[in-house]
Formats: sequence, structure tokens, C-alpha cells
Amino acid sequence: MKRTSRDIRTANRYEVLRQIIAESPTSRQELAAATGLSLATVATLVGELLDLGLLTEVGFEDSAGGRPRGLVAVNASGGALIGVDIAETYVRVELFDLALNVLARADEDMRPGESRPAQVVGHVATAVDSVVAQAGVECARVLGVGVSVPGQVDRATGIAEYAPNWDWHDVPLLGLLSEQISHPLYLDNPLRACAVAELWFGAARGRGDAVVVNLGTGVGAGLALGGGLHRGVSNSAGEWGHTTLVLDGRLCHCGNHGCVETYVGAPGIMLNLRELSPRSPLLHPEDQTATIDALARGVAAQDPVAVKVVRDTARYLGAGIADLVNLLNPEVVVLSSWVAAALGEPLLEEVREAVARHALQRPLAATEIVLSPIPTDPVCLGAATFALEGALSSITQKANQRSNRRTWSKQ
Amino acid sequence: MKRTSRDIRTANRYEVLRQIIAESPTSRQELAAATGLSLATVATLVGELLDLGLLTEVGFEDSAGGRPRGLVAVNASGGALIGVDIAETYVRVELFDLALNVLARADEDMRPGESRPAQVVGHVATAVDSVVAQAGVECARVLGVGVSVPGQVDRATGIAEYAPNWDWHDVPLLGLLSEQISHPLYLDNPLRACAVAELWFGAARGRGDAVVVNLGTGVGAGLALGGGLHRGVSNSAGEWGHTTLVLDGRLCHCGNHGCVETYVGAPGIMLNLRELSPRSPLLHPEDQTATIDALARGVAAQDPVAVKVVRDTARYLGAGIADLVNLLNPEVVVLSSWVAAALGEPLLEEVREAVARHALQRPLAATEIVLSPIPTDPVCLGAATFALEGALSSITQKANQRSNRRTWSKQ
Repeated sequence: MKRTSRDIRTANRYEVLRQIIAESPTSRQELAAATGLSLATVATLVGELLDLGLLTEVGFEDSAGGRPRGLVAVNASGGALIGVDIAETYVRVELFDLALNVLARADEDMRPGESRPAQVVGHVATAVDSVVAQAGVECARVLGVGVSVPGQVDRATGIAEYAPNWDWHDVPLLGLLSEQISHPLYLDNPLRACAVAELWFGAARGRGDAVVVNLGTGVGAGLALGGGLHRGVSNSAGEWGHTTLVLDGRLCHCGNHGCVETYVGAPGIMLNLRELSPRSPLLHPEDQTATIDALARGVAAQDPVAVKVVRDTARYLGAGIADLVNLLNPEVVVLSSWVAAALGEPLLEEVREAVARHALQRPLAATEIVLSPIPTDPVCLGAATFALEGALSSITQKANQRSNRRTWSKQ
Repeated sequence: MKRTSRDIRTANRYEVLRQIIAESPTSRQELAAATGLSLATVATLVGELLDLGLLTEVGFEDSAGGRPRGLVAVNASGGALIGVDIAETYVRVELFDLALNVLARADEDMRPGESRPAQVVGHVATAVDSVVAQAGVECARVLGVGVSVPGQVDRATGIAEYAPNWDWHDVPLLGLLSEQISHPLYLDNPLRACAVAELWFGAARGRGDAVVVNLGTGVGAGLALGGGLHRGVSNSAGEWGHTTLVLDGRLCHCGNHGCVETYVGAPGIMLNLRELSPRSPLLHPEDQTATIDALARGVAAQDPVAVKVVRDTARYLGAGIADLVNLLNPEVVVLSSWVAAALGEPLLEEVREAVARHALQRPLAATEIVLSPIPTDPVCLGAATFALEGALSSITQKANQRSNRRTWSKQ
């Protein structure tokens, strides 16, 4: 309940930095206009970000007869951030500069069954070494590594509490990773990584309330409410994939029946296909990615089975998204992750129609449904953003401690 | 997106007033400890509330050798607030003092079919006149009337946009009421009234995230997230009653199929009973209240049909509440409104078991499910609270305007 001035200051600092990353160079006056903060507040926050080396002064612009305005930009080369996307079938690692441009990427495939924590940690460590070497950055300049792992995670302890697809229970993932990676580590899950990526860089930026629907092997909904991530009381909000869409429906690996995920996650879509056409050549029984790609190509070629499967999937998805619209009344719903990217516009069109059939008129009229505009892996970008937030808060704490020490030594 | 210092100030003012209403008399030091705000901030806010006549100084307490601490309390007789609960089958109006004690109550029954706006407005006006006369308060001391009406409402324009049970569309309710009621009027719906009542006076007070499940003729979920009401982008968040629980299930009056409300709203519960035992003496076909009361008595007497109906209803309710737990990860789920009050502990026990069967372990472990502890009509209390919030913001604005005028006249 403690909504302290420090929380507000942190939120405002994020807001200013987001705006500068989106439009660099910019002036304090433009920042004040874009964020709704006072010029005095913006000037203070910009000063702090300059002191921290995250921004740099880049000259002046004329202001129609007035005093020339100082321009600031992100100090892109001031450090590097790493985002790690641990998915069910692959590990992807990207290294970013401070303007969140991708400087290097490494992919590691995981074979079916290759899901022991030690195996996964090995892939992550290899890929992190690879991106640091590729980009040629000094280790000391890596401000942090954000790690996204599916399922429920305890950020504070770095424990992957429950990853249903791998049957992981209470894996001390950050501890295992820290034995091989010396940079500061930040753990979270893909729902929240995708949501924070949209909040900083995508379709949720500047929107009041947004729902980021994550369609991959697992599915979920990252909630960006009131301009910030809604985490819930124990950091597990967003498990929309495990809400009931069909009472007593398909058995889910979570133990429940009829969960949204069993109809619209990649394995659920494969089952939709198998139920419609058990021997379809579109079906690659052991390969989710190949099946989804085949469906996308089939829809492009107007293959009737592919069209029907996408329509059936959109019908489930539309009913589930309408539930989110009715319950949360968001300004935007963003379809994110690899299944949404692969099925693209044809899926989006069908989903929009299905949501319109299910949702109440007032919230429906207020909601826009879009595909994620983020051109790179949103999970890596979001994970790197967690590292940026973490670095920002830890260097701010250190700066506060230094200034406290100065105050103390004067007394 | 404009999270300004004014919003924070308003939230903090509510927080301090809530705490004083809950524990009066109290000191500024106790308030600072209870709210997490600094003593300086609390002192400023208390000063404002004293100036506005909402608080009063009530002496001093010893502070173990230190300076005696000034005590403040709510100035209960400083004004009156009225809460109006327009339900499908009745209108209830309560008049409160500023400590939110009920001073007078009036009930008007509505006959089946009596649902034209003019009829409803007539009942409200009669009941408002009645409570003012009963309590013997001067009209000028009534700070405001909060009005709750089912369905989707536009607070800003005072229009009841859609009340599905009455098939109301775009009824200018506040305009019609203002022709007969001269006090300031504030419109909202029962979901949000119940949520704000729990937030100020009930089980959500001091909790980070709470979901208030409203079980009446209609059902919904008021969302109290981060210590404030989550309204959504067009004030229609909370329509959990119209989320899909059974794809292609029972037809709902909203036009969709399988909505939660069709299984756990009072008419849905009557249908659960009818499907189990079409000629049950518990069933009063035209009377929801009589049927729910008969079920409650039946459960108390261990009537097997009543027990089975409550169990079946709890099964639907448990699956739907588990969805809220998985999606929002709240600290507390409160069962509110007249159906929850009538079926009470036996329903609660069955619901807890059903939620435990459906919800994921991590969010389940963090959530408590309780019956509303509010002993009076929570909708009236919440509606009166909206009037208190409205009065607080309007008198604060006037005070600011006065102080601005003073500043201007000095220049």
C-alpha cells in the first residue's frame, strides 16, 4: 500500500527515458509536453539520467526567438544490455545498446526432451558469451542480463517455481546461471517481458490500459494497467492461458480442463488441425514451428483446411480475448509472440470478428486489437528492458548512497 | 497517462480519510505509521481536511514523556451523504453521516415489469425525500447523492448506457433525477459501488489488489488494483458476468452464450435448480429473492436438493473465480451482494474447494476468499462513498479556486 514518492519518481524516470528512447534527440520542453510532467520535474529527471551516463547532451535547437533549447539523446554507447528468451524449443539471446538497438544475436536450438535445468543453463551461457564476443563489448560495459523463462517465477529469489511444459518445480535458475555468467541477472517470464516491451517500445506506449496476449507454445496475457505492469500480489498475474473457456473441455497440463491454452497454444492449434484433418500434410507431429509455418503458408495459398483451422483457432481466441475486453476494458489488445507473428494478418482479421461477436458493445468500442509492431523478438527486448530497469534502479540507489555519504560526512 | 502530483494528492487524501474513518480518534503519528506516508504529508492533508470541516480536533493523548499528540476524528455531523441502490427488483436508499453510519433507510419495491426510467426515477425521488425527512437533516447539509444502477454507465454524462436486465439503452438517468432531486448527483454501477465500499470500509482496505465478486441478479467483479478502483479506459471494467465459462453454453441476455452470469446470477441459480428438480417446492418461479432464501433455508436443513444446487452453483462460481485468481493474482477475493449474503458460509466453503481445484498453485496460495464483512447494504455504502469522493474533490477545487483568487488579488 505504500505508494511513496520514490515509486512515483521511479515511474516518472521510466516515462522520461521511454520518451527519449522513442524520440531522440529531444528537448526538456518537448519531454514535458509528451509526458504531462512539469518542466521542473523533467529537468531534474534529465539531470539525473545525464549524471548516470544514460543520456548525453547533443547541442541546441532554435526556439523561435527564445533562448536556444538544449537537446538530449540516449547515450547509446554508454553500456550494453542483454535479453535472454528461454523458450520451450530454443534459447535466443540478443545484445542491445542503450537505445535498445540489437547489436548481436545468438540462437541455440533445444532438442525435444532437452529440458533439464543444467542443459538449459549451458545453452544460455554459450549464447551470452557469443553475443558479447560478436559485439566486441567489454564485460564491464554490460549493465545486466534479463532472463525470461516460461511459467511462474519468483523475481526476488530468482527461482523458476513452475514451468508446466517442462515440469520444472522450484528450479534455482538465477543461482545456476550466476555460476557461469558474471553480469547482474534479472529473472521474469515471457508474459511480462512481452508486456514491458510493448509498454516501452510498442503498441502499449502512451496507452492507459493494455493487454498483451502472448501466443506461443504456452499462452498468457501481460497486463499493462495505468501505465505500469500489473504483477499481482505474488508476481503471477497474467495466467490467462489457464482460465476456463470450455468447462470440462480438453485436459490441460496444469491439471484443469478447458483452459484457453489447450485451444490456442501451438500444441492446441495442432490438435485443432488433427481433429479436423488427422492426416493433413500440414501436420508435423513433433514440430510445432513447422506446423504453424505450414498453416501460415496454407492460408496464404487459400488451402481450405488451413483456413478452417485458423478460423476455428480465432473463434476460441476471440471468445477468450472478449473475456479480457469485458473484464479489463483495455485501450489496446496486442497479439504478440511467435505464433501471432507467423499467422499474422489473416489471424488478426478473424480474431477481430470473433471478439466483436462476443464482447459487450461499450468496452468493444473502446478497444483496438493489433499485431505487435515490434520487429525483433519481443521477449528478448522485454528481458533487456527488465535489465535496463534493474540497472537504472541499482545505479540510482548507489548514487543516493553516495549523496547520503556526502551529507553524512558534512555533519 | 498524466500521473500528476494532483492524482497522487487525491489518492493520499482518500487514504488518510479512510484510515481516520476506520479508527477515530487518531493522531497524525498513527496515521503516518498506518498509511506509510511521511508525517509532513499527513500533517498537510489533515490540515486540509480540518479546513474543509470533514475532521475535527478532539483533544490530546500522552506520548510517553514527549509532547502530547493532537487527536483528530471524523466530524460526523459535518454533513450527510446519501447512497441509492437501484436494483432489478427494488430501490434502496440510505442516508449516512460523515463517519458513514446509517441514519435513515427507505425501501421501495418494484413490481415485475416496472422498469421504465420514469417509474424508477419516481421511486428514487420518493425514497430520497423519505430519508432526508426521517433523519431531519437540512437539505443544505446533504453533500451529495451517489446513485448505483446496474449495467454500463457513463459517469461523466450521467447516462445509463446499457442495462441488460431492463433493456435500457442510453437513458439520461442523472438528468431525469436532477429534475426531482436538488443535491449533487454521482452515477456509477453496483460493481464499482461494492468494490469502493470494500476498499474504504471492508475486506479490501489496506490490501494491494482485491477482486470484489458481486452476486445478485446480475454478476460482476469490481477490481481494486494497486489501492484504487480499476475502471478501464471507458469505465466499463469488471464485466466478469459476461465472460465465457462454457463455450456455446446457456444463452445470455447480452447475446453471447455460456456467460458466467447465466450460471451464477440469481436467475441462473434458479435454472440450476429447475434443471435438477423441475417441481421443487424451493422454486418460486417469479421471485428470485424467495427462491434464494428458500435455498438458504434448505441448505441449513440439509435438504439434498438445496445442497446439490448450491454445490453445482459453487462449481461454476469456483471455475470463474479461479480465472480471476489466475489472471489477476489478487490478495483477496470478496463475495458481495445479496445472493452471497443469503447463501453465506455454506456457499463460501464450496466455492473455496472449487477454486482450489481450478486455480494454479502460486496465485491460489496468495489469495484469501471471504464473504463481505460489511453489515449493511454494500451498494448503498459504496454509492454514498462516491458522493463523499465527489464532495471531497469539489470542495477541494473550490478551496483551490479561493486560494488562487487570493493569490491573484495580491498581485
